[in-house]
Amino acid sequence: MIESNKNATVRFIKSLTKRKSREESGCFFLEGLRGVCDAISAGARVKHLVASESFLNSALVSEIANLEDSAVGFTVESVLFPVSDSVFAYLSETEAPQGIGAVIYMRTPGEICGRNLLLLENLQDPGNMGTVIRTADAAGFDGIICMKGCVDIYNSKVLRSTVGSLFHIPIIRRDRDGDCATSVVAELKGMGYTVYAAHPRGGTVLFDEHFSERNVIVIGNEANGITEEMLNVCDKTVTIPMPGKSESLNASVAASLMMYETVRKRKQ
Amino acid sequence: MIESNKNATVRFIKSLTKRKSREESGCFFLEGLRGVCDAISAGARVKHLVASESFLNSALVSEIANLEDSAVGFTVESVLFPVSDSVFAYLSETEAPQGIGAVIYMRTPGEICGRNLLLLENLQDPGNMGTVIRTADAAGFDGIICMKGCVDIYNSKVLRSTVGSLFHIPIIRRDRDGDCATSVVAELKGMGYTVYAAHPRGGTVLFDEHFSERNVIVIGNEANGITEEMLNVCDKTVTIPMPGKSESLNASVAASLMMYETVRKRKQ
Repeated sequence: MIESNKNATVRFIKSLTKRKSREESGCFFLEGLRGVCDAISAGARVKHLVASESFLNSALVSEIANLEDSAVGFTVESVLFPVSDSVFAYLSETEAPQGIGAVIYMRTPGEICGRNLLLLENLQDPGNMGTVIRTADAAGFDGIICMKGCVDIYNSKVLRSTVGSLFHIPIIRRDRDGDCATSVVAELKGMGYTVYAAHPRGGTVLFDEHFSERNVIVIGNEANGITEEMLNVCDKTVTIPMPGKSESLNASVAASLMMYETVRKRKQ
Repeated sequence: MIESNKNATVRFIKSLTKRKSREESGCFFLEGLRGVCDAISAGARVKHLVASESFLNSALVSEIANLEDSAVGFTVESVLFPVSDSVFAYLSETEAPQGIGAVIYMRTPGEICGRNLLLLENLQDPGNMGTVIRTADAAGFDGIICMKGCVDIYNSKVLRSTVGSLFHIPIIRRDRDGDCATSVVAELKGMGYTVYAAHPRGGTVLFDEHFSERNVIVIGNEANGITEEMLNVCDKTVTIPMPGKSESLNASVAASLMMYETVRKRKQ
């Protein structure tokens, strides 16, 4: 039972609140029983299973034994890292810690494939990122491409609002120095995708767009929308009608309406 | 220039962070230049216009003069409440206060009327509440009915995510002791509305639902959905298809997809 915040592993886990540490270590910290169970069921590789003294003494501890069934490449015993309640509270980013969490190896970034993709440019709000990942998973999308300027998908707030979907859908990163709207869209067009920009004005009305065999939906920044560079290289612009008084929609709502339009058109 | 947090008006404004104080006084505190301008343009009645010393010395102060044009029943001078930067920081609920805010009289709750209404039951997340108000406004909905258990719409996080829509669309409260799903839905049916419950399984597929002349869309709690009592009294259950792996959608996304389906069906 680790009781000191100065323990090397505790310090390592605490460092994972920073994006830089996550990228250097290739690991992230996921809190909560449901999230941990979902991740392991979806095949996540666990480095440490962090449990507080209270959790280990509670009835919920039996849930840990069930993890063995779906665990890939490890036993619970080999990764269990028991800590005092105060150490867990120190590691936790929530106000009411559940006392259970896991340090998980990030997935290898996915490759571009499949019929429908979501392309995110400068999506900065963690809640929006979590929500679009969840909707993309529900809508049966095949992958999400994150460009430069997007919030880190392993941010703890994103993890809380994805509700496990992060482990269902491939996330593809195109955020290195050479990556730009022009190069990424050219790559997608070369693979046969039609690239649709969501824009508040002037595009084809969403309900009238038929979509293609292979679609990429582009969603931009919460305040500023899609960049000029991106708009210039997209194949088509699609506009969600707003018959009421508001002049804009929340970015995750716009993304959801666009994605579900492809679900509808696929059905017909 | 008020420099003490103990000033009576400062203490009154600070108390508005509590729902009970808002309900007793009939006022709420809205921060940020855009929100204040939107509210006043939409006809909000202002009790105090709170401005920090830095704001009053900045170029943005000219925006205050423009408010006069749309102000109803007050002049800026008569409501201006200048405070020191430290008092404003004390009143602010944001990390980077803009130095401008207003104490606004709540709108009188609206009456039930119009073609399309949203009925919310136990919607608890402030971000979701703000997002559904914004989407309802964009979709041209005629009102939002809040039942017991919903987060207060004058919560500061709700105000930040509505982006002004709160002042465009009537919010109808049905949260008193005698109000229950059965009585509220009976009232709506008596007015000729058809009441549609959004449910993850077993309902008519969203794309196949034609909707009526007068529609009420019911959205439930983030974790538990719609109550049994409500499900039993609704006319129809509608299910949003989820061809992917996720078994649920964010409540504000489900509400948005349902509301936009009525926009589409109205168009045809």
